[in-house]
Amino acid sequence: MAKISVMGTGSWGTALAILLYNNGHQVMLWSAHPEKAVSLNETREDSGKLPGVKIPEGIVITSDDKAALTDVDVTVFASPSAYIRKVSRRLAPYVRQRQIIVNVAKGVEENTLMPVCDIIKEEIPQADVCVLSGPSHAEEVSRGLPTTCVVSARRKETAEYLQGLFMSPVFRVYTTPDMLGVELGGALKNVIALAAGTADGLGYGDNTKAALITRGIAEMTRLGVKMGAKLETFAGLSGIGDLIVTCASVHSRNRRAGYLMGKGYTMEQAMKEVQMVVEGVYSAKAAKALAEKYDVEMPIVMEVNKLLFENKPASEAVKDLMQREKQGEISWE
Amino acid sequence: MAKISVMGTGSWGTALAILLYNNGHQVMLWSAHPEKAVSLNETREDSGKLPGVKIPEGIVITSDDKAALTDVDVTVFASPSAYIRKVSRRLAPYVRQRQIIVNVAKGVEENTLMPVCDIIKEEIPQADVCVLSGPSHAEEVSRGLPTTCVVSARRKETAEYLQGLFMSPVFRVYTTPDMLGVELGGALKNVIALAAGTADGLGYGDNTKAALITRGIAEMTRLGVKMGAKLETFAGLSGIGDLIVTCASVHSRNRRAGYLMGKGYTMEQAMKEVQMVVEGVYSAKAAKALAEKYDVEMPIVMEVNKLLFENKPASEAVKDLMQREKQGEISWE
Repeated sequence: MAKISVMGTGSWGTALAILLYNNGHQVMLWSAHPEKAVSLNETREDSGKLPGVKIPEGIVITSDDKAALTDVDVTVFASPSAYIRKVSRRLAPYVRQRQIIVNVAKGVEENTLMPVCDIIKEEIPQADVCVLSGPSHAEEVSRGLPTTCVVSARRKETAEYLQGLFMSPVFRVYTTPDMLGVELGGALKNVIALAAGTADGLGYGDNTKAALITRGIAEMTRLGVKMGAKLETFAGLSGIGDLIVTCASVHSRNRRAGYLMGKGYTMEQAMKEVQMVVEGVYSAKAAKALAEKYDVEMPIVMEVNKLLFENKPASEAVKDLMQREKQGEISWE
Repeated sequence: MAKISVMGTGSWGTALAILLYNNGHQVMLWSAHPEKAVSLNETREDSGKLPGVKIPEGIVITSDDKAALTDVDVTVFASPSAYIRKVSRRLAPYVRQRQIIVNVAKGVEENTLMPVCDIIKEEIPQADVCVLSGPSHAEEVSRGLPTTCVVSARRKETAEYLQGLFMSPVFRVYTTPDMLGVELGGALKNVIALAAGTADGLGYGDNTKAALITRGIAEMTRLGVKMGAKLETFAGLSGIGDLIVTCASVHSRNRRAGYLMGKGYTMEQAMKEVQMVVEGVYSAKAAKALAEKYDVEMPIVMEVNKLLFENKPASEAVKDLMQREKQGEISWE
């Protein structure tokens, strides 16, 4: 049994807290907002984000920074990626030397182009930062539906320790040494989800969607490998696995925004309709910047950027992708 | 402009004949059955397989073996894989030296474990056998929806020549030297589609399906690489791309049969309900035989075999997959 705190009461944080509690660990669930902690403590259910899912009484819910980080074996960081730097800075004083932090947020910071683990490392240099990722809708995990993830750490022993903590009869965890690859898969997938949604909005079929997913992961892989990640990671759970789930989901805001743009909405109109800014819009900018920085060809990313920021019609973007110069899928050399 | 014959009037053969004709080539469409050729010639539509899709008058429809193979630049073999040996043997006498044959059928022969191109090569040794594959429902190609494929040949020049013949504003073709990898992806995908269908039948969600697809392609890759194919091919259009389309399709008989088994049907009951034998059943046997021959671990293939031939309950199979010993996704060495 380990003592674990989960920092963040979004649907993923809550689902993981319940999973870990059911695995027999002592679990604390922390919210950055005292009023959220109080209300969750009363209702024991987040009726907005995970309706019908009871948070067991044995899980201590708190907003006390120090309490949540004192004498814990592991702490799971589950804030949205946009808040990770702020939260990390706030919590840093309470984090002990070599504290294992498992990041489960996905994204790349807009101005620095840093993936989430690097942000945490910068703000909390004394920690041992790890990452958990994969095709895992929180709603399904909280309902006990079979799910697989990967966990990555600097050291193999740490990864295997975490694998043991998270693994359950319905939650299978693989280890991998490629932390960067795991992070990039999660951070870039939303750009491709936007493109896949756009194809749906244009009325295209399964062939087009499979093409965008497959060629999308190909360009994500090209970028990742150039940055030092491993090719195989993008063929794995945190790469193609997570991308498949995101592109198939009817709940994905990125897919939905893309769908509307396929129907002829501008980016602003689509954002207004979806009623929130979608991560894919930031990711698209970041992916373009990374493609330029590392000099990697990313045609789908480039077309998504034109769609978002230059009001290029979606059908034109698809036409230009289909009619690029002839290519090999694999080099003949 | 090239002179091309398409051998086989299934939905894929007909869709490719129309695509090639619209690309400006001179096209003949051949049926093994005179009565089918006569009726297609009259109706110019296969109302059963491709309803609403007109076969242009410019396409010559024939059942004359010699006529279909005389003075053609390229011939496309589009018979179902179960008939490929018989058809190849029948047509062999009319095939000239170094005739380019493009195989578009997918499968592995049950007793020999040979992929389709090898069967054609054995029966028609004088031919230059190539392959076209990818995520391409015929119905969608015939409606002009954007689609991508790969073409592979022994020589780069041949592959690029074929790329030029097939490529259109809505049909994008990539070349690859890995003919074996391309064939194996298409041949093995139906086993994984059966598993994915089973998960749907059990009421599992997108997480489980993405897990089966991702871990499924991982074991297909392991086998393929051991047999001499390239890892990257399984991450490409004929690998993961085709697998995604097959697992997503509501039309796939393999997925449907799996779905019924997830609901508790035996294999025999599921076959009866689907009203035909599904390829996945043969592929599952072949994949198991290949796994044993090449000494490769393929846990999903093994569970699908137990499901099909040992009446193992689907929920037990999933449980056993989820609770296998702990693994790494990528080696730490």
